[in-house]
Amino acid sequence: MKRIGVFTSGGDAPGMNACIRAVVRGAVYHGVEVFGIRRGYSGMIAGDVYKMESHSVSNIVQRGGTILKSARSKEFMTPEGRKKAYDNLIDLGIEGLVAIGGNGTFTGAMIFCNEYGIPTVGAPGTIDNDLYGTDYTIGFDTAVNTALDAIDRIRDTASSHDRIFFIEVMGRDSGYIAVQSGIAGGAELVMVPEVLTPISEVVEILKQGWSRSKSSSIIIVAEGDEEGSAQEVADKIKVQVDENADIRVTTLGHTQRGGQPSAYDRILASRLGLGAVEGLIAGQKSVMAGIVNNDLVYTPFEDTIRLPKPISEDLLRMVKILSV
Amino acid sequence: MKRIGVFTSGGDAPGMNACIRAVVRGAVYHGVEVFGIRRGYSGMIAGDVYKMESHSVSNIVQRGGTILKSARSKEFMTPEGRKKAYDNLIDLGIEGLVAIGGNGTFTGAMIFCNEYGIPTVGAPGTIDNDLYGTDYTIGFDTAVNTALDAIDRIRDTASSHDRIFFIEVMGRDSGYIAVQSGIAGGAELVMVPEVLTPISEVVEILKQGWSRSKSSSIIIVAEGDEEGSAQEVADKIKVQVDENADIRVTTLGHTQRGGQPSAYDRILASRLGLGAVEGLIAGQKSVMAGIVNNDLVYTPFEDTIRLPKPISEDLLRMVKILSV
Amino acid sequence: MKRIGVFTSGGDAPGMNACIRAVVRGAVYHGVEVFGIRRGYSGMIAGDVYKMESHSVSNIVQRGGTILKSARSKEFMTPEGRKKAYDNLIDLGIEGLVAIGGNGTFTGAMIFCNEYGIPTVGAPGTIDNDLYGTDYTIGFDTAVNTALDAIDRIRDTASSHDRIFFIEVMGRDSGYIAVQSGIAGGAELVMVPEVLTPISEVVEILKQGWSRSKSSSIIIVAEGDEEGSAQEVADKIKVQVDENADIRVTTLGHTQRGGQPSAYDRILASRLGLGAVEGLIAGQKSVMAGIVNNDLVYTPFEDTIRLPKPISEDLLRMVKILSV
Amino acid sequence: MKRIGVFTSGGDAPGMNACIRAVVRGAVYHGVEVFGIRRGYSGMIAGDVYKMESHSVSNIVQRGGTILKSARSKEFMTPEGRKKAYDNLIDLGIEGLVAIGGNGTFTGAMIFCNEYGIPTVGAPGTIDNDLYGTDYTIGFDTAVNTALDAIDRIRDTASSHDRIFFIEVMGRDSGYIAVQSGIAGGAELVMVPEVLTPISEVVEILKQGWSRSKSSSIIIVAEGDEEGSAQEVADKIKVQVDENADIRVTTLGHTQRGGQPSAYDRILASRLGLGAVEGLIAGQKSVMAGIVNNDLVYTPFEDTIRLPKPISEDLLRMVKILSV
Repeated sequence: MKRIGVFTSGGDAPGMNACIRAVVRGAVYHGVEVFGIRRGYSGMIAGDVYKMESHSVSNIVQRGGTILKSARSKEFMTPEGRKKAYDNLIDLGIEGLVAIGGNGTFTGAMIFCNEYGIPTVGAPGTIDNDLYGTDYTIGFDTAVNTALDAIDRIRDTASSHDRIFFIEVMGRDSGYIAVQSGIAGGAELVMVPEVLTPISEVVEILKQGWSRSKSSSIIIVAEGDEEGSAQEVADKIKVQVDENADIRVTTLGHTQRGGQPSAYDRILASRLGLGAVEGLIAGQKSVMAGIVNNDLVYTPFEDTIRLPKPISEDLLRMVKILSV
Repeated sequence: MKRIGVFTSGGDAPGMNACIRAVVRGAVYHGVEVFGIRRGYSGMIAGDVYKMESHSVSNIVQRGGTILKSARSKEFMTPEGRKKAYDNLIDLGIEGLVAIGGNGTFTGAMIFCNEYGIPTVGAPGTIDNDLYGTDYTIGFDTAVNTALDAIDRIRDTASSHDRIFFIEVMGRDSGYIAVQSGIAGGAELVMVPEVLTPISEVVEILKQGWSRSKSSSIIIVAEGDEEGSAQEVADKIKVQVDENADIRVTTLGHTQRGGQPSAYDRILASRLGLGAVEGLIAGQKSVMAGIVNNDLVYTPFEDTIRLPKPISEDLLRMVKILSV
Repeated sequence: MKRIGVFTSGGDAPGMNACIRAVVRGAVYHGVEVFGIRRGYSGMIAGDVYKMESHSVSNIVQRGGTILKSARSKEFMTPEGRKKAYDNLIDLGIEGLVAIGGNGTFTGAMIFCNEYGIPTVGAPGTIDNDLYGTDYTIGFDTAVNTALDAIDRIRDTASSHDRIFFIEVMGRDSGYIAVQSGIAGGAELVMVPEVLTPISEVVEILKQGWSRSKSSSIIIVAEGDEEGSAQEVADKIKVQVDENADIRVTTLGHTQRGGQPSAYDRILASRLGLGAVEGLIAGQKSVMAGIVNNDLVYTPFEDTIRLPKPISEDLLRMVKILSV
Repeated sequence: MKRIGVFTSGGDAPGMNACIRAVVRGAVYHGVEVFGIRRGYSGMIAGDVYKMESHSVSNIVQRGGTILKSARSKEFMTPEGRKKAYDNLIDLGIEGLVAIGGNGTFTGAMIFCNEYGIPTVGAPGTIDNDLYGTDYTIGFDTAVNTALDAIDRIRDTASSHDRIFFIEVMGRDSGYIAVQSGIAGGAELVMVPEVLTPISEVVEILKQGWSRSKSSSIIIVAEGDEEGSAQEVADKIKVQVDENADIRVTTLGHTQRGGQPSAYDRILASRLGLGAVEGLIAGQKSVMAGIVNNDLVYTPFEDTIRLPKPISEDLLRMVKILSV
């Protein structure tokens, strides 16, 4: 393999730049040329591509976002779009790809490889940590710390006013951010998509807290919880507890996607970027590089896409014990 | 004056603890006894009061929230409530008060002094910076930095995806947080209650940006803007620009009230706490301690309540020039 | 087991409070009484002990340091000292101990158990991550992020002035903080006690960088490196490269021990604190609770003390590739 | 004035990039062309200059360091050097300069203007806050917050171990950083170049603290204190107090120069950058733009160079009262 491309796709995540850097420097180290493709599959179709050198990735390891930009491409879902992308890659002599993104990204890459034989190795870049085949995804640790910083701030004001706070964190299909930030933030309860927490149980826990003279409480709600958004949960609670209870809602939103990546995410991104490019050079295709039990492993895209990543029972049990 | 009380009231603000510390240590330094009153006027009515020593305020200068807690008291708005409060103070031998809060707090203190002759000196504790008689209020600098941290994070993701972000910051009647965080965050536009920004002007600015190839834009909306909340503004814009524009909204909410206070707020809070207690000892009453042009000044409560605090024209002009 | 004690010992580490909280709440959850012992073995000898309840550990999960304080005790190294400690524990009815600390702490606990039969389960609390039997120790992730924050700041000024910076991080016997902060911070080179890096090699790497027009370089030195402190290394380099080179040295020092613990450390501390108390209740003794490959494991103190924890070859290799 | 140049010189400071941005956008707004000069006077002599547009300063408002780089130039101190610089400016058609830096920078600019008539307006960029003609300099607020963050971390570990910490902060000729970070950090004592604090007084204050059961103390030492560096002060203290006292020293060093600028510094830098360029356009020369009592003022370089900036007596008094 003489020449490869690298791109980011889907929602951006802190650490993507550290991953791009590792791909580029890993390629340079192994004597392989590397091209940056802007805006994911859109740029591949448009030919928005440039040669990257070692210095192209200087001073980006600490930056949030992605210097290659990211986008979702409807056109790549069509055979015509993929044909254009293929023609561009052939013109440029690009023989393999590193894709930094999530399952949507990997699905596209798998189809593309089946159709045109261009191999792709993926690196898991998403704050949601919802990908089978790696213990953690790039951006997750930073997102948890960002959510935690907000929880710490809100605890200040919750304690000052004897308030109940419902805080909504990201995670449409996954409660990982909610559970980890909830444990770390000392939350009274965490509501996640994976486990049903009936409103009656929330009310019960709040009342138990009051009976032990807890004057303020924090409840973390993953955006994908079955009982609805944090606002909806709060509205349901409001009618069942003391109507004078001072209940507030905060939705953390897109702040969780940005910020300087944590040490953990930069190291993880570096390992996975290097692992992806070295896997590609070694002949891997349609696999995602991941870290499982501290070891670098390659998991077929079809497994990362198909298989669920259940949340740890231990962590869910811990939330209960620690809020005693 | 042999014995005084100190309390926090209204919305909490970072730096209130640093202010309490300065009041307590200032009183101790001058040989005056000091009592902490919990939950503002509610605690004064309930007699929820304790003797504070120098060590009572050890290791709190860096903490958000208020160790004395805060609350709004309907009962203090009644003559009966104030009578109870007065009786409690007399029983305890408390001859003067330091009140840390905003205009609601000061209004209560002024009425109370008129009725019962107990003097109060105020320290301006509110993140909104909407008090006449001081250049900055305790908590404002921290709130701006908290908002700015969120804007910085969102810029990462805005730039990665070519998005327009509307970010709502606190400030029901005042655009101070919006303007300062907007300038510091490099926002394209800031919408504040003090100045009417028609939707057509917002659209115009976005279009100008696009014509100069700006691919992402950030617009800060103070919660009290006439065009409505950030969500409402975004909805109005959406229909007037390219319908494919990727527009997102984030409401920062209560995170702005918490967090470790900045150096500026800790120093300001220390100066004002010390200024308040020394003013009280020197015979001041129904005045607020403030810093104007680096000098400590005392402004009558009736002025801080009555007079507006206009936003700087210079800053509003700067937003426009810097987003060129 | 009806009643246990918990203490922190040795150098403090961020997350110790989260660990204390998990021990206390875990004990309460299982119906076991728990006493806090202040200042480690010193307090055990002095009888400086108090009953802890669930609310004793409210609002500490986010705080650095240790509410139980820590100290090194020479007296506990004597038979007389341990006899006093034993008598105190018997008087209080304390039947088992959770010790949060490092190998010095565990050595004392092992000897104490051999002599008097009081079982101890340890939780690894040290920023150095030098304990066999756990992938990471409590405080390590926070210390790496603190070092990284400093490296990020120094890179700003290094880049602005075309300087070479030598930054000394903690790690007398272990290069873990150096390697992880070095990779995450994009350092050109990392010097650790585990691997000999001759001065000639450092000079070579600097010259290679200049030949590729790198104008500023950052070299991380673990305090226990064989070539000496960062200052000593810098002095040796100075005479071998261009004498006009602008070389600066910064020693990060004790800032690495403090600060609010990261999400990772709070969760790790919670798991290990709960694991330690549940192990103790289940009959474990003279073992350390650790997390290896995401699983809770108990390792005999004699192994954690005797066995080395080598640094990952993969990470050392990565430093080289990524600074290409 | 049709065309101007902008450069940074001397030690870098957080906020310099925000200032460059304001100069560039201010020039563009007023229809004036602007060139960036790299590495201060060195680049002026070498002709290392490039045309800047509005987008040249996109996304830099939040970055530490200076995109124009900074250097000290011996050559500019010679008539030959200044002649070369002048010739380059004439060739480029540059008619005026904005210099971001400190007194060394302004001295050069004043001499240059006297010799060749090229007007310069300065913006005060230095973390030390030692410039007459402005209440605060660009970078000072960030540096204080960086020092404060370190003090907060060290207090964690000081409190955990009953230690005395001596922390050295920057300020060779000025105690501003020391005093502000000391007050905000709750230090027991602050030692500054402006005021003599004899060792005997330090010992006295430590002993008073112990008599009130203060178990840990933090003393801030400005690097320019007459009693020597923090290490030297600590060594002198060590022999005069209990020899078993656990005394530690930390020197914060260059971390204080870097980091993302605070909101305050970004706004100040924006005002001063805009003020400098508008002053230059309006015909000012050999003056520094500053903010005094919230107003923009221009002070002749000869005054900023000649006149001292005394430290506030109020703040020094506050340190004493608050550590009661």
